[in-house]
Amino acid sequence: MIEEKGILFILSGPSGVGKGTVRKELFDRKTDLKYSISMTTRDIRPGEKDGVDYFYKSKEEFESLIKQNKLLEYAQFVNNYYGTPREYVEKTLAEGYDVFLEIEVQGALQVKKNFPEGVFIFLFPPSLEELKNRIVNRGTESEELILNRLKEARKEIELMDAYDYVVVNDDIDHAVTKIQSIIQSEHCKRERIAKQYKKILEDDIL
Amino acid sequence: MIEEKGILFILSGPSGVGKGTVRKELFDRKTDLKYSISMTTRDIRPGEKDGVDYFYKSKEEFESLIKQNKLLEYAQFVNNYYGTPREYVEKTLAEGYDVFLEIEVQGALQVKKNFPEGVFIFLFPPSLEELKNRIVNRGTESEELILNRLKEARKEIELMDAYDYVVVNDDIDHAVTKIQSIIQSEHCKRERIAKQYKKILEDDIL
Repeated sequence: MIEEKGILFILSGPSGVGKGTVRKELFDRKTDLKYSISMTTRDIRPGEKDGVDYFYKSKEEFESLIKQNKLLEYAQFVNNYYGTPREYVEKTLAEGYDVFLEIEVQGALQVKKNFPEGVFIFLFPPSLEELKNRIVNRGTESEELILNRLKEARKEIELMDAYDYVVVNDDIDHAVTKIQSIIQSEHCKRERIAKQYKKILEDDIL
Repeated sequence: MIEEKGILFILSGPSGVGKGTVRKELFDRKTDLKYSISMTTRDIRPGEKDGVDYFYKSKEEFESLIKQNKLLEYAQFVNNYYGTPREYVEKTLAEGYDVFLEIEVQGALQVKKNFPEGVFIFLFPPSLEELKNRIVNRGTESEELILNRLKEARKEIELMDAYDYVVVNDDIDHAVTKIQSIIQSEHCKRERIAKQYKKILEDDIL
């Protein structure tokens, strides 16, 4: 009866906050959500599939898409481009699916600029102390790198004002339940649905 | 760690849509929610308690509160006033509890004027046909009264634009779950909580 477009949800937050773990648990629970497939210029690896793991493009193709503003965000790592193609997101939303994007803060700010109608969720550490512990416990980084990442995290937390929601990741289950609530309640927002709902007033029963 | 004020939620919608049933089920599930206690000038009845069922006031007291704008909304029925005292709502919110108000559309619009920071939820009938069936099935009203109530309902649906959320009452369980999601997600709204959350940046660990 009510036709609804999907919504683009963007999960972001400082590194070490647990975005990947939260996203994984969310997808384990909520299977009707579509994960945004990234585009890359890196070579396809054995076992990967074009349009499943990534959309694989040449450097020239990627740069042409950048010029045409066909990426919601992109970045360059180790000589390769990675980005979020607008077309896949818009097609999937038009089919009525919600799309979920888990991304670093800088990328999220680019998406905000290019797709302001997205719903931006900031995953927040329970404390800076705890964030430090999590980075330290990965065990792969020097004291200096850890300090740099914490300084970076502070700066990123200050960018929180661009976001619609803030979810504390004090507990994976709580955080994922809150994100599920955000997804459900966004579909109840009056400005999204009032127009379609008012169509029932055209029912010819009076 | 994070101190949070409560939020005032207002559930409204056309008569016959099932506001009372939804509110009852919500309170059965969610016991930390406080129901807004109304004020009235009607006599206290056996078994009722002041400050539990209603706040009981004289006509003069009530009219004095109206003049001082101390009611979020009020109406007169059969020579008695009924209204929502601002003080009780604000005290309960300050204690950190969410307050829930279930009310007719006209009353909700008054609350919107006096307390715009409330979260307004419009309960929507699955169809006008279904709304008619529900009113008819109460079995207490004449054909003419039913027609009037349906016309009223149409007008009320057109007032939907003052609301933040729209929830279809196609199924009590679904509707209540959506309202619970709205309550939870509103507590994650960045503009409500960013200021307190940024306090963790004052942690002296860097």
